Amino acid sequence: MLGARGGWQALRRCASLPRAQRAVRLRVREALRAREPAGGVKVQGWVRSVRSQKEVLFLHINDGSSLENLQVVADPSLENRDLTFGSAVEVQGKLVKSPHRMQDMELKAETIHVVGSCDTWSYPLKMKERHPLEYVRQFPHLRCRSNTLSSLLRIRSEATAAIHSFFQDNGYVHIHTPIITSNDCEGAGELFQIEMSHEARKSAEKTHFFNVPAFLTVSGQLHLEVMAGAFTHVFTFGPTFRAENSQSRRHLAEFYMVEAELSFTESLQDIMQVMEDLFKTATNTVLSKCPHDVGLFHKYIAPAQKTKDRLEQMLKNKFVIISYNEAVEILKQASQTFTFKPEWGCDLRTEHEKYLVRHCGEVPVFVINYPYDLKPFYMRDNEDGPQHTVAAVDLLVPGIGELCGGSLREERLPFLESRLQRYLDLRKFGSVPHGGFGMGFERYLQCILGADNIKDVIPFPRFSHSCLL
Amino acid sequence: MLGARGGWQALRRCASLPRAQRAVRLRVREALRAREPAGGVKVQGWVRSVRSQKEVLFLHINDGSSLENLQVVADPSLENRDLTFGSAVEVQGKLVKSPHRMQDMELKAETIHVVGSCDTWSYPLKMKERHPLEYVRQFPHLRCRSNTLSSLLRIRSEATAAIHSFFQDNGYVHIHTPIITSNDCEGAGELFQIEMSHEARKSAEKTHFFNVPAFLTVSGQLHLEVMAGAFTHVFTFGPTFRAENSQSRRHLAEFYMVEAELSFTESLQDIMQVMEDLFKTATNTVLSKCPHDVGLFHKYIAPAQKTKDRLEQMLKNKFVIISYNEAVEILKQASQTFTFKPEWGCDLRTEHEKYLVRHCGEVPVFVINYPYDLKPFYMRDNEDGPQHTVAAVDLLVPGIGELCGGSLREERLPFLESRLQRYLDLRKFGSVPHGGFGMGFERYLQCILGADNIKDVIPFPRFSHSCLL
Repeated sequence: MLGARGGWQALRRCASLPRAQRAVRLRVREALRAREPAGGVKVQGWVRSVRSQKEVLFLHINDGSSLENLQVVADPSLENRDLTFGSAVEVQGKLVKSPHRMQDMELKAETIHVVGSCDTWSYPLKMKERHPLEYVRQFPHLRCRSNTLSSLLRIRSEATAAIHSFFQDNGYVHIHTPIITSNDCEGAGELFQIEMSHEARKSAEKTHFFNVPAFLTVSGQLHLEVMAGAFTHVFTFGPTFRAENSQSRRHLAEFYMVEAELSFTESLQDIMQVMEDLFKTATNTVLSKCPHDVGLFHKYIAPAQKTKDRLEQMLKNKFVIISYNEAVEILKQASQTFTFKPEWGCDLRTEHEKYLVRHCGEVPVFVINYPYDLKPFYMRDNEDGPQHTVAAVDLLVPGIGELCGGSLREERLPFLESRLQRYLDLRKFGSVPHGGFGMGFERYLQCILGADNIKDVIPFPRFSHSCLL
Repeated sequence: MLGARGGWQALRRCASLPRAQRAVRLRVREALRAREPAGGVKVQGWVRSVRSQKEVLFLHINDGSSLENLQVVADPSLENRDLTFGSAVEVQGKLVKSPHRMQDMELKAETIHVVGSCDTWSYPLKMKERHPLEYVRQFPHLRCRSNTLSSLLRIRSEATAAIHSFFQDNGYVHIHTPIITSNDCEGAGELFQIEMSHEARKSAEKTHFFNVPAFLTVSGQLHLEVMAGAFTHVFTFGPTFRAENSQSRRHLAEFYMVEAELSFTESLQDIMQVMEDLFKTATNTVLSKCPHDVGLFHKYIAPAQKTKDRLEQMLKNKFVIISYNEAVEILKQASQTFTFKPEWGCDLRTEHEKYLVRHCGEVPVFVINYPYDLKPFYMRDNEDGPQHTVAAVDLLVPGIGELCGGSLREERLPFLESRLQRYLDLRKFGSVPHGGFGMGFERYLQCILGADNIKDVIPFPRFSHSCLL
């Protein structure tokens, strides 16, 4: 995550510089990883702890570049009233080998400058306390300074980069699918509508801004299909919206979705292969780039769920594939009593999905070939019977249920003709077999981290009755 | 862009396989770059030209992986009625060295399968025609199959990746700042407001979905400032919105912005350095990754403007820095008559910005220290006089005018106290000097490509009276 090279080169230069030169600024992460002691070093960050002893003053400094703090050792004379938990400081001094077994390097302070003080009485975070996630959620502007949220946001940043790289490395073109749209892809009805604000509207005509009703997107699929007809492989990674009046741990009004679309598919296998590769590649990258941050979640946030071991199993084994028919049979024979009785033709509920995952040994499970009548118009008809199905696939994962949904799309004009006009042009001009899928990014993060509440894996959660900040 | 490794390995494997094995699928880009002839190759794409001679049938195939087509050479017996311009095909055969000087490799077809035919009479694109940009803009679902738009979208994809990499390599944490917000950062008034759609609202209570009025974001700055208080360096790259009733070549209702925020800044120089590095690094990456695509723009779309030479100058030279005071003096002494008379205390207009860039030799120009009364509350007071200024900076570039805007933010509590309550908490708890900037991504693309109309550098343009697809 951190461009260590600049720091290293600067450090090497500074080692041979005369004392009067300007100090070299290092991020905490760079300082902790330095291999050699060095003088004339400057570190800036926020105080995570202050411990004043008779002979020595200990500080821990964090600047967000890593979960670990840098220990600062200073003469007690450098202490001052403003040097408290939460204050912003700039420390200059010598980077030296630490006698402590917990860290390699520490900073021997020559000067400590309090850049911004912190009123610890009104500051909602307290020194050395592990605040519950529900507590810090009340402070959207300050919770990123807690260990859990700062780890989460570093992981989120790395996961975002890993997902972009996965597609880029595999020849996909990234498309910014529009946020404002006049379509309703899923026909879900739970849409946000957009208008000019009342103030702006006063001065304008009384019609719609776009001449037609406009909504916030629920999926980039239709726009990606357009693009797959030119670039063969495309992806998008952006916000999507649902006006669902839900306070559940599983839903947000604004969330991020990774969507991919592939032309010239031969079977659902093509789509499933990409889903599995994406999950494994991105997760391996995140695990190798932020081991400490992920470790914090696996150790403190989801310890009972053994997310770590489960994750290792998921990465090591091939994902399981079962048909919807098989899934219904498994559920019917289950000893468990479900709230919704499993029946061919009914949608799988979260309770069913979780059972199927457990039944298959707590590994990700692809369920394929869903009933024709359950799925939207654009999914490819399997032309089977009497139980008529389409080439749809859902990926179910431990602890979450559905993580991805995808399908082959109906590329044959006659099959679509009776259904939807706007879709037809794309089938008239060089139509190709194609398919795609979407993956909920927040659910992905919940899955690999074992985070229980979706509000804790997004920087600024939006849901009904809440739009803080 | 393309993951050539997979293809190469497959190609190497297939060279030693017996004939009966399945053909190896190659993207057009991979086929064109193959170093060795190879049998058992399969290429899928859309026909860009058909030329039937007595002895031989020539096809050009494009699959969106590159601007260049792959030439297919076939026996005339393989021709059929559906093999037309625009149709989707799968060609199997041998990859051989081409006798043509225009390409290294061509495909000797053994089979040609028309996967999807194309009704050339109603297809709005015509073979070997260079359609004007205004013409293809009418077909949002098909224009990505024209050379210009497909080049643009590959460049856009690479530029997006380059910008992400630039920040990631320099230790910035990526933040998904929210799209829906209850703030109005710029106080612009030209906001889109969000409500549940009429359908969804029927069944729900009659209050706001979020309890408060909610809008589409105009900037992620406030949310980035929150995050810069924990991670020191952060960035975001997402859609922003203006309900501006404008049909101009310069404005969209939905556009993309790159925004960065840095803590512990010492002067405006810190911000300008990042802007300049970002511009140069991203542009060099784009030029090296898609030379042909960029070349198409410089050759056919903006030839008179000599965008290519100008761009080289921009990348080679240090950007110029002038103060707002100097800028006003330059404008006052200009021989040109402006529609808006330049005067200290007035905002710079596009005509002024373009003049300043020309005056400085058609290189990017930073204008710094704008009048206090012109800029929003959060910019840092320079405490100068009698001409009172703030530490703001705009980056002006040739052909466009303003590309980036940034400032040091006011970190001192007393300076803000009288202005805005919601901003204050961040200054109470470990406040640090910081600053940041935003860059319009579409303007950036217009700048490096010489594209005249902003609607041609975004996949699905949204502006007043238009929300196609």
